[in-house]
Amino acid sequence: MKKSDLEKLLNDVKDRQITPEEAVEKLKILPFSDLGYARIDHHRELRTGYPEIVFCQGKSIDQVKGIFAHINSTGQQVIGTRATEEMYIEVEKSVPGVKWYSEARIISKTDPNTVLTETSVAVVTAGTSDIPVAEEAAVTAELLGNRVVRIYDAGVAGIHRLFDKLEVIRSCKVIIVIAGMEGALASVVGGLVDKPVIAVPTSVGYGANFGGVSALLAMLTSCAAGVSVVNIDNGFGAGYNASIINKL
Amino acid sequence: MKKSDLEKLLNDVKDRQITPEEAVEKLKILPFSDLGYARIDHHRELRTGYPEIVFCQGKSIDQVKGIFAHINSTGQQVIGTRATEEMYIEVEKSVPGVKWYSEARIISKTDPNTVLTETSVAVVTAGTSDIPVAEEAAVTAELLGNRVVRIYDAGVAGIHRLFDKLEVIRSCKVIIVIAGMEGALASVVGGLVDKPVIAVPTSVGYGANFGGVSALLAMLTSCAAGVSVVNIDNGFGAGYNASIINKL
Amino acid sequence: MKKSDLEKLLNDVKDRQITPEEAVEKLKILPFSDLGYARIDHHRELRTGYPEIVFCQGKSIDQVKGIFAHINSTGQQVIGTRATEEMYIEVEKSVPGVKWYSEARIISKTDPNTVLTETSVAVVTAGTSDIPVAEEAAVTAELLGNRVVRIYDAGVAGIHRLFDKLEVIRSCKVIIVIAGMEGALASVVGGLVDKPVIAVPTSVGYGANFGGVSALLAMLTSCAAGVSVVNIDNGFGAGYNASIINKL
Amino acid sequence: MKKSDLEKLLNDVKDRQITPEEAVEKLKILPFSDLGYARIDHHRELRTGYPEIVFCQGKSIDQVKGIFAHINSTGQQVIGTRATEEMYIEVEKSVPGVKWYSEARIISKTDPNTVLTETSVAVVTAGTSDIPVAEEAAVTAELLGNRVVRIYDAGVAGIHRLFDKLEVIRSCKVIIVIAGMEGALASVVGGLVDKPVIAVPTSVGYGANFGGVSALLAMLTSCAAGVSVVNIDNGFGAGYNASIINKL
Amino acid sequence: MKKSDLEKLLNDVKDRQITPEEAVEKLKILPFSDLGYARIDHHRELRTGYPEIVFCQGKSIDQVKGIFAHINSTGQQVIGTRATEEMYIEVEKSVPGVKWYSEARIISKTDPNTVLTETSVAVVTAGTSDIPVAEEAAVTAELLGNRVVRIYDAGVAGIHRLFDKLEVIRSCKVIIVIAGMEGALASVVGGLVDKPVIAVPTSVGYGANFGGVSALLAMLTSCAAGVSVVNIDNGFGAGYNASIINKL
Amino acid sequence: MKKSDLEKLLNDVKDRQITPEEAVEKLKILPFSDLGYARIDHHRELRTGYPEIVFCQGKSIDQVKGIFAHINSTGQQVIGTRATEEMYIEVEKSVPGVKWYSEARIISKTDPNTVLTETSVAVVTAGTSDIPVAEEAAVTAELLGNRVVRIYDAGVAGIHRLFDKLEVIRSCKVIIVIAGMEGALASVVGGLVDKPVIAVPTSVGYGANFGGVSALLAMLTSCAAGVSVVNIDNGFGAGYNASIINKL
Amino acid sequence: MKKSDLEKLLNDVKDRQITPEEAVEKLKILPFSDLGYARIDHHRELRTGYPEIVFCQGKSIDQVKGIFAHINSTGQQVIGTRATEEMYIEVEKSVPGVKWYSEARIISKTDPNTVLTETSVAVVTAGTSDIPVAEEAAVTAELLGNRVVRIYDAGVAGIHRLFDKLEVIRSCKVIIVIAGMEGALASVVGGLVDKPVIAVPTSVGYGANFGGVSALLAMLTSCAAGVSVVNIDNGFGAGYNASIINKL
Amino acid sequence: MKKSDLEKLLNDVKDRQITPEEAVEKLKILPFSDLGYARIDHHRELRTGYPEIVFCQGKSIDQVKGIFAHINSTGQQVIGTRATEEMYIEVEKSVPGVKWYSEARIISKTDPNTVLTETSVAVVTAGTSDIPVAEEAAVTAELLGNRVVRIYDAGVAGIHRLFDKLEVIRSCKVIIVIAGMEGALASVVGGLVDKPVIAVPTSVGYGANFGGVSALLAMLTSCAAGVSVVNIDNGFGAGYNASIINKL
Repeated sequence: MKKSDLEKLLNDVKDRQITPEEAVEKLKILPFSDLGYARIDHHRELRTGYPEIVFCQGKSIDQVKGIFAHINSTGQQVIGTRATEEMYIEVEKSVPGVKWYSEARIISKTDPNTVLTETSVAVVTAGTSDIPVAEEAAVTAELLGNRVVRIYDAGVAGIHRLFDKLEVIRSCKVIIVIAGMEGALASVVGGLVDKPVIAVPTSVGYGANFGGVSALLAMLTSCAAGVSVVNIDNGFGAGYNASIINKL
Repeated sequence: MKKSDLEKLLNDVKDRQITPEEAVEKLKILPFSDLGYARIDHHRELRTGYPEIVFCQGKSIDQVKGIFAHINSTGQQVIGTRATEEMYIEVEKSVPGVKWYSEARIISKTDPNTVLTETSVAVVTAGTSDIPVAEEAAVTAELLGNRVVRIYDAGVAGIHRLFDKLEVIRSCKVIIVIAGMEGALASVVGGLVDKPVIAVPTSVGYGANFGGVSALLAMLTSCAAGVSVVNIDNGFGAGYNASIINKL
Repeated sequence: MKKSDLEKLLNDVKDRQITPEEAVEKLKILPFSDLGYARIDHHRELRTGYPEIVFCQGKSIDQVKGIFAHINSTGQQVIGTRATEEMYIEVEKSVPGVKWYSEARIISKTDPNTVLTETSVAVVTAGTSDIPVAEEAAVTAELLGNRVVRIYDAGVAGIHRLFDKLEVIRSCKVIIVIAGMEGALASVVGGLVDKPVIAVPTSVGYGANFGGVSALLAMLTSCAAGVSVVNIDNGFGAGYNASIINKL
Repeated sequence: MKKSDLEKLLNDVKDRQITPEEAVEKLKILPFSDLGYARIDHHRELRTGYPEIVFCQGKSIDQVKGIFAHINSTGQQVIGTRATEEMYIEVEKSVPGVKWYSEARIISKTDPNTVLTETSVAVVTAGTSDIPVAEEAAVTAELLGNRVVRIYDAGVAGIHRLFDKLEVIRSCKVIIVIAGMEGALASVVGGLVDKPVIAVPTSVGYGANFGGVSALLAMLTSCAAGVSVVNIDNGFGAGYNASIINKL
Repeated sequence: MKKSDLEKLLNDVKDRQITPEEAVEKLKILPFSDLGYARIDHHRELRTGYPEIVFCQGKSIDQVKGIFAHINSTGQQVIGTRATEEMYIEVEKSVPGVKWYSEARIISKTDPNTVLTETSVAVVTAGTSDIPVAEEAAVTAELLGNRVVRIYDAGVAGIHRLFDKLEVIRSCKVIIVIAGMEGALASVVGGLVDKPVIAVPTSVGYGANFGGVSALLAMLTSCAAGVSVVNIDNGFGAGYNASIINKL
Repeated sequence: MKKSDLEKLLNDVKDRQITPEEAVEKLKILPFSDLGYARIDHHRELRTGYPEIVFCQGKSIDQVKGIFAHINSTGQQVIGTRATEEMYIEVEKSVPGVKWYSEARIISKTDPNTVLTETSVAVVTAGTSDIPVAEEAAVTAELLGNRVVRIYDAGVAGIHRLFDKLEVIRSCKVIIVIAGMEGALASVVGGLVDKPVIAVPTSVGYGANFGGVSALLAMLTSCAAGVSVVNIDNGFGAGYNASIINKL
Repeated sequence: MKKSDLEKLLNDVKDRQITPEEAVEKLKILPFSDLGYARIDHHRELRTGYPEIVFCQGKSIDQVKGIFAHINSTGQQVIGTRATEEMYIEVEKSVPGVKWYSEARIISKTDPNTVLTETSVAVVTAGTSDIPVAEEAAVTAELLGNRVVRIYDAGVAGIHRLFDKLEVIRSCKVIIVIAGMEGALASVVGGLVDKPVIAVPTSVGYGANFGGVSALLAMLTSCAAGVSVVNIDNGFGAGYNASIINKL
Repeated sequence: MKKSDLEKLLNDVKDRQITPEEAVEKLKILPFSDLGYARIDHHRELRTGYPEIVFCQGKSIDQVKGIFAHINSTGQQVIGTRATEEMYIEVEKSVPGVKWYSEARIISKTDPNTVLTETSVAVVTAGTSDIPVAEEAAVTAELLGNRVVRIYDAGVAGIHRLFDKLEVIRSCKVIIVIAGMEGALASVVGGLVDKPVIAVPTSVGYGANFGGVSALLAMLTSCAAGVSVVNIDNGFGAGYNASIINKL
């Protein structure tokens, strides 16, 4: 609730357009819907025009279905991350036209006429196994209206594969670097560009990789200065972050 | 080395302006200076106009002094982070005019006529003890040419202290959130703004804080989508990152 | 065994109501039953009127069935936590009238005429995925005779969803806060109320959440002073604790 | 800010006692003071009558002195935890009458006429080395107005030392158990009483104690149901928590 | 190879009973059999009369079968730990008379006429869920010729259940204490007896139990002096150790 | 790209054999193929004659099949590690003649006429359960052209089993030591030989083994000076490393 | 309190030798002394003849002095572990005749006429740096009346140094193995003897040794069956344990 | 002891040159000296011609002095690592001519006429702060007779500083890569060379670097195949390892 709204409300009280009791009630009516198991927040969306975002993992199929149906009924856009194909099939029954990105594990019902940004977000992976996380990042950024450039399997063990694409990477406004194992790609890219680098450690690897911890620590301690980090396998977070920055 | 430079070089070879052997030599002459113990990189600076940055911790006073003297002699700007007052006193002997920011632990010799950005970087801390890290971030951002807004001691245990400053925070282009202990401030701020939030966990706290690990993990697993994280106590990294984004 | 009982026993010996040998035997007959694989403790129950509590996880279906049958045969109330539906089905065969709370994973045979407390226990969750743990806490508290208020999906990323319910939360005598990921909700609630807050970290999340460790550490290092913590996903412990405090 | 205050404010607007602009200003004037480096929260204190609490560790002596002087000047009570004797000596210069509890590391200026509670808080330690943390808990509870019973050096390796005091412990309304090493005392006490047990792991021990982690984990996984846990060495948190519960 | 054997061998060389070359060969013929995938050690067995011990986990069914068949063919006793029922069924085909202890997961072919020790090994568990590990310990000790006393479900949350059996426990020569969760039972028993206590942490529990780590750390940092620890869930190690001590 | 190639290219430009534009293109054409999901690096292979190596884990069967088909079509050798039998069956359909090493989990299509090295690589394991990792190492080394000596089940608990083979081990040029549990074999072998020892911790074990961490730490802190370590279960890395050293 | 004591007491009540009230009092008079900061346990000592043991670390010099003075005044023997020379100097003032073992950090006042055991405890270290822990173990065992054999600097990197002493080691009844770094010595000794091995990890080493964790984990996961483990650097615990076993 | 020696010994027995009893004695006289606190191993040295190596950390100055004096008196070479200047000053008093490498913390008395190897060992560091570890590696390798090439401050954040030296690095036979922070340099170098790479993580960095753990994990999980790892800050181990390989 913005300051101007509050002033407007108080002026209405002053002008006896509404009673103080009504004002108290209004102040309590915040822009979200309560489904019992979920309290959908329309706040950010009203303000920014971004679709609603639902983190599907840990929710039952019925809960996901209910949330999609409700949001769709309000005419808003909605993106569901960490979804399963089963969830998609059920959601599709009550929300026709939803799309399913299987590698990215994303269900979406967004405006097909969204105009993409001029500037691009680069999504770079170290290996082939990092692609599912990369797709989560890339599809998220695209659904939020960004142009995306994908560069996959460009890890530092064969560094010329990265250099081959350096010009393209440098031309983007934000760079998402996705790597498992030792995560060195983030430092190397960070040293070669002058754009914000969002590093995503992945749980790809084995042994002393510890489910992505090695890559996470490496990225946090990167010797390159422009690198910030999101959670392990958090492609969505990287895509969302990149979108905020790309649209600044 | 940019593509156009390479084409120019090759054209020079073609036009017999230089011999192939000379070209090979040129390709090898990269823009850095070798002091033996340090190889100073002039690359990024030539390209971006940013000052040189020296991480002083772990270097001897003589090494820091030597590096500052060398860079200064080339006429370039230079910032030294994680410095000690002793280092400053020694550097000042051969590089007159360097400045010392004691709380931020930064030595700098930069252009006093730098024009600051229109937009601002917010630096928000949860507590009083986080101020040294915050100053490292704020001074870094300022020395790189950014306008900075400081909001200190606004932790979530007294959340109205944060709300009091929300309008100011929302008016900034990038927000740095600095917190130790449970690091909850990053999530709360992240949920209230639509700008990129760079979270800096600090080692402030005791016991199960584990030198900043609790805040680090909390920030990485933040339920707010626009938050990315840098290393524990890494005020410099946050300030540098914020500068890149603020200047996009 | 209370001091008065001991004096009574010794007086009986003095008065030659019982022989010393009998007294020794009595002192050894402690109020529990030995089923071989389990030694059921009737001690606390006799004293407090609380039902027996059985932790079912890690026990075989036959063991759970045997324990329920035995306690029921003594006429005492019994609650089984971390049960499976299979256990319930088997227990129901020999203990008619047991109830099954599937989301809470609790089997119970308790007195339906228990009068609930005047004061309430609030159970607040950050997200929808925390509901199973919340139900374990809420059902436990209810079966132990407490009035419970449920407030689900009120995480800090949309903090107005919490503020909307603040008045209700503040009216309760004890507050259970349940959150996964970064667990910031405990600190925020702790800063807004003056009642004991029992924080339950959940294993909800992924990556650097490490099965609930992030939320656990955040809650332990909370900057709000009235917060204490129980084990990850330990809804039962929180409900039991809240009941002890609520009934003080 | 309570609902009734808001209604009053709005009625004032309606009755033209104040203008809407003034109301907006009032809504922004929150009860805290900004010292630049610290934003002192008078909120909770006004509402509860509790003294202000200052966490001194990580603050400079000047900051601590300034905060004490400011609060004292407002006529409010104040407690400083994790203080050093140096801080006390400096504070005493501008706030005559402050008291110093050296073992508890607490500085306080509180009302000497506070009436203590009828019911007591028990503070039980496993060993002699846990006494500093215990004193922090006990002094905190006393300064907040609670009667405190101290039982020190009653660890489980000589369990009859605990049983000797069991009756006293059981007569208290809340029990704080403080132990390092393996922290087993919390479970044993938890199994013997029907009151809330607040467990404080201490960093007392060596080797696989890992600075209190062993005791922390043991207390979190306690097989006794009424135990909740605060941070390692967090005597203050335990005392504060116990006070809230004892005064319910 | 004992010193006397070496002297005998050298005397044989001196007396020209064997050539030096033959002696070298003899010195190389060590008492084990090489099955390719396993090198069975007959060394300890020849010397001590203990059965061979095979750790079955991680071996294929064929490998286990082959090892049992080979050892049995040499007339030696054999115990297989961490076996599966499938392994037992296969082994039984070629080694008739092997026995299967399903809860202990042990296959054995030992001498039924072994005379048991006079003194006993106590096996005490905190809970019902610890019984599989306890059975591994108890069956191991029995198969190695020890008398065993089982006391199950005597955890510290109901400490009178332990005291009821204290006399029996104290009468044993070695005590194995098996506990998951916070593992406090080891410290309590250790404080009540003057016999060696071998503590076995189990992976029973959840959350901050971390697969047995909490109990392990608690046992290692036990405040009771006579406690030593074996690996998590290592019932076999405890039973073997207890046997060595019991037979001293 | 070697210096001589660059000089050649520049001479060609100088001699007008190619235009500068063509040279730029050539400099960008690096020796790898882009399959979209994978960018196959022909670089190292062209230079060293080693087969291509594909890490199959985390790749889909289709991706593995596609990569093998592509490399085979270029006439190069190829080794796939961490493969499954399913992958092999599919690859075999389009690349006839590939071989499957089931214990080593390796698919290969290599030159059957490769001449093996004179010197040998020893592969020593502590136990039977370490054999799969050992086979990965041994098969890798063999496919890269090295003679390999296998010594399995020679752990330190029966140290004479190791001594029996010491002469053979000492005769090899590089020694790979593979052990789980406490990994002591690496230190013992390292103390007995004067050749480089490559230690491979395995995830064999349970409890405080923590998936190979115990062996990893033990090997890293080995008191024997000639030991270096690769990742947990990284048989391939050890075999590759040993091959580089053996062929020096 | 033994069963016979209880019967005696009850018979006294029956025979009207004492009143029931007196009996209650007697039952409460447990054999320890309360010094306020410490509750000295005379229980075990009365029963076993062992000296009192005081863990001095974390206690103030005054506390240590007070405890020693008190115990000495009762005529009992006393051992103080983890003491400092300062403590010794102070204690010596009020308890003449105490002895100081500087390397072991032990203060003692014990009976010089104690007859040592026939059988011996071996104390074996891997390196020179482990000697302080070894001396704590050895002096503890000696003060408790055991004959001790010291074998120092026999680590596995030069395994013949161990073999040279194998006969002596095998002749002892209990073996304490003390090692830092990778702790392999415990496994090697455990594989060569048929006596109980008590392993003590030390914090000797650096880097991935993590203050003794590497050695601790290695010892817990030892492939040799007769090894049990005490806390890092816990020489006292090992010596005490060895004494219990040696005296069985 | 080699097989030929044993045959010789046995032949001597056969030929009655020595008695069997003497032979037993000889077999027991292994080539080391026992100083009480240290057992100096002459074994490896006799065989390989390498100097004795003494790890000085954790030893007293007197012990270091005694060990140096003893070895020097036998005419053997000796190297002391992790020494302090104080140790050097004391050693120099009884072993004239010892040399002190202050940055490498090495004391040595070696043969000045040692001929260096033809081939070289490269020692590459990421930063200036890694130089002390690098010097330990380089001086170790030099004292063991290897030619060494030092390339310092070539981290991946300015990757052209590495490429500038690539030709030199590739010309060496073994490459030691030393890096703290995220340790990415090992992967990048490993991808660019075909020689064995020994990676040394350093404790250089802060925060999530965790004393070198980040670099350690990154190096262990390196995506480049020819990389093996030694302990954190273990410059000596790297230099020794490199020497073994370089001299193969």
